[in-house]
Amino acid sequence: MPRRPGSHAAETNRRMREAALRLFARHGYAAVSMRRIAAEVGVQAGALYSHTPDKQTLLFSLMQDHMHELLAARAALPPVRGAEARLEQFARFHIRFHLARPEAVFISYMELRNLEPENFRVIEGLRRDYETALETILRDGAAEGVFSVPDAKIAALGLIAMLNGVNTWYREGGRLTLEEVEAIYRDMARKAVAV
Amino acid sequence: MPRRPGSHAAETNRRMREAALRLFARHGYAAVSMRRIAAEVGVQAGALYSHTPDKQTLLFSLMQDHMHELLAARAALPPVRGAEARLEQFARFHIRFHLARPEAVFISYMELRNLEPENFRVIEGLRRDYETALETILRDGAAEGVFSVPDAKIAALGLIAMLNGVNTWYREGGRLTLEEVEAIYRDMARKAVAV
Repeated sequence: MPRRPGSHAAETNRRMREAALRLFARHGYAAVSMRRIAAEVGVQAGALYSHTPDKQTLLFSLMQDHMHELLAARAALPPVRGAEARLEQFARFHIRFHLARPEAVFISYMELRNLEPENFRVIEGLRRDYETALETILRDGAAEGVFSVPDAKIAALGLIAMLNGVNTWYREGGRLTLEEVEAIYRDMARKAVAV
Repeated sequence: MPRRPGSHAAETNRRMREAALRLFARHGYAAVSMRRIAAEVGVQAGALYSHTPDKQTLLFSLMQDHMHELLAARAALPPVRGAEARLEQFARFHIRFHLARPEAVFISYMELRNLEPENFRVIEGLRRDYETALETILRDGAAEGVFSVPDAKIAALGLIAMLNGVNTWYREGGRLTLEEVEAIYRDMARKAVAV
């Protein structure tokens, strides 16, 4: 099959992003140079600069893409009725989405400290959009009379932190199946905000 | 007042640990050299090696001290009766202890990846001791008939992750007082494992 024009560049871009994600997650953004990323991809450092102007932009782009994917995947969930069902769907979605992307998740939390102020503001805004989606479920549940949350914003942050925790300890093939873990967390999340 | 013998060394040691904590939290362990820590302290790099054999030992020592302090402070809590009261005490203690040490907490989670295997095992063991303390409260509560937890270990991990989350967003002087935040989280934690 003939190669599409530009496919080589696209492939280099993809491999640069994968390498950066892996190296940032393993060693931390500050410890990884563009030269090291280039070495991992197997190209000269100069070759990366047609794909990203600098390391900061690369970090920002990785974090922004992660948040865009998260928001798009959540928005694409099938509609369900009732705040309890929506919360259970959210919890299950959150766990699955994040377990599938441990490096992107790790970077998204850890490297906030290394974002330049304007980039930080954008990522924070996207994160707020996601939190607001859960907040809305909690407020709707309070209106339906099934949830009791003195502060929906804080409750949403608490639940997201709880669900994020799964990434720190869950291992496939461990004592519990993913379905069992999801069931336990869904149940705890629902009860935590129950009337 | 005459200076105690050794007080200069003790002071250098204290400042080395403070500088390492601050720099590791800000830039990540891998990006910070002993030379940089020495510069922060205002001594030659060689002067640090009478206080720690190497950077790995320094990281390990910071993380181990943090866990020892955590376990000692928890063990020193006044006894309270009943699993619900114990859980509320645990939640309040956890939030206060961790909010007071944001850099040590950040490092304790982030730099696990940089511990050598034997050091990792020690820190994991201490962390397990802390988790077991909460697990015990949950099991006792189940025996008392006030808690319902299908898996006390997983429930403990879920609650600790939720409580840890406070560190990522709470700022003194913000919208909510520490007492209000504690009350919200205590309530969510108790309800999450309630019958």
